Amino acid sequence: MNRAPGPPRPSPVVEEELRLFGLNAVRAAFAARPEDLRKLWLLPARLGDLRELIAGCVARRRGYTLVEAEDLQRLSGSQHHEGVVAAFRRPDELPLSTFLRDLPRGPVPLLWLDGVGNPHNVGAILRAAAHFGAAGLLLPKTAPSALSGAAVRVAEGGAEAVPCVRLGRIDNAIAQLQAAGFQLLATVVRGGESLYARPLPARCVWVLGAEGAGVDPALAAACAARLGIPGSGRVESLNVAAATAVLLAEWARQHR
Amino acid sequence: MNRAPGPPRPSPVVEEELRLFGLNAVRAAFAARPEDLRKLWLLPARLGDLRELIAGCVARRRGYTLVEAEDLQRLSGSQHHEGVVAAFRRPDELPLSTFLRDLPRGPVPLLWLDGVGNPHNVGAILRAAAHFGAAGLLLPKTAPSALSGAAVRVAEGGAEAVPCVRLGRIDNAIAQLQAAGFQLLATVVRGGESLYARPLPARCVWVLGAEGAGVDPALAAACAARLGIPGSGRVESLNVAAATAVLLAEWARQHR
Repeated sequence: MNRAPGPPRPSPVVEEELRLFGLNAVRAAFAARPEDLRKLWLLPARLGDLRELIAGCVARRRGYTLVEAEDLQRLSGSQHHEGVVAAFRRPDELPLSTFLRDLPRGPVPLLWLDGVGNPHNVGAILRAAAHFGAAGLLLPKTAPSALSGAAVRVAEGGAEAVPCVRLGRIDNAIAQLQAAGFQLLATVVRGGESLYARPLPARCVWVLGAEGAGVDPALAAACAARLGIPGSGRVESLNVAAATAVLLAEWARQHR
Repeated sequence: MNRAPGPPRPSPVVEEELRLFGLNAVRAAFAARPEDLRKLWLLPARLGDLRELIAGCVARRRGYTLVEAEDLQRLSGSQHHEGVVAAFRRPDELPLSTFLRDLPRGPVPLLWLDGVGNPHNVGAILRAAAHFGAAGLLLPKTAPSALSGAAVRVAEGGAEAVPCVRLGRIDNAIAQLQAAGFQLLATVVRGGESLYARPLPARCVWVLGAEGAGVDPALAAACAARLGIPGSGRVESLNVAAATAVLLAEWARQHR
């Protein structure tokens, strides 16, 4: 054990590392891939809650350090660290071809994030995706990584259950998905068919756009349908993560 | 127009006032109840977006002040002010009896917040409630007000569409709701029936608990059923606001 004599030295975040924080996020990452844990910082009050992680650190000769709340805030860049910050190796993104090759046949939903970047929304989408068993989060070629410490915390463990899949050219990605039996459904705020208008495909890619901008029109046009969630019109739309939960729930109601 | 010579003097928040921020939140409040606007602070860059509000201020002899971003951050206590902060009269909460007396007959969902206090969750719940036409947000006798600037911002206008209703004693509240034809459904993470196990009642009160603590066991036991949203088990539960969207969507699918 190291008890830091002062605040931890400003250790720069290594590019292939992810600073995770929040109890459920850190525990889920350790349960899924203990070998990826590189360093752990925690409040003394968390020693009991994190016994297994600390044993893992000792067994793997990884450092863990008892620190103050303000150190955790600086290490995580957040007030929502819940008493623990951990550096983990950043999980690999899968190329679409590899992902589809290893994906079992049968009913499954995927999510395609077209411009959704807000970490709170990405995290909430990952949590819903994990809850409903979505098999992957598809990311366009040039999109930044979906995983940040903030997103992983909001996902409450869901980030470990849903791999990120990196797409190539959009037309190629669509062709590969279609060849694997998927139908793409774009979600739109205005002018779409109702989610309930017809049965949902068993292999289904939900294409989600950023709030405001929505799904890119060319991508939406290339989808099998453009769907919306019927509502009162009293607000412009649902939040994108709430919408994702509704879409995945309806798919699961029909196919699980 | 007042152009502040320096930062605005620290004007304490008046108790019956609500400091709203975020473009959609402020615009929706002004559209719903222009007479409640008391004061407006904005960035010069927002003059165009807020033309109607400013005209309203002038017509009603309310002050509006051009300020800097850091002033808005201090006035709102948030970085998410989107260039505008407004002081509005806090909307009245309705007693349950008044609310039920004026509620039209026929299918309608209500939400009962049992311990949900996180402003982000409350705001997201209000947004989903507005989208799906829930008629009210029921608050236990001793719960703090559901409306805060942060919650109203996250609600993106939804807070103006869904009145807050203050409950009295729990047994009385349940009896009043039942007498008005409502069935109460508690949402639970473990051990509940599936949401899809049987048709949902046309007049339906969704009882929602805080994450972690859940619905109070005595209240859950007094409900007509305890329901959960089937999932993979890969995360402990959905976020309470995402769950609310799923519950309201399923109710709307059956009854709208």
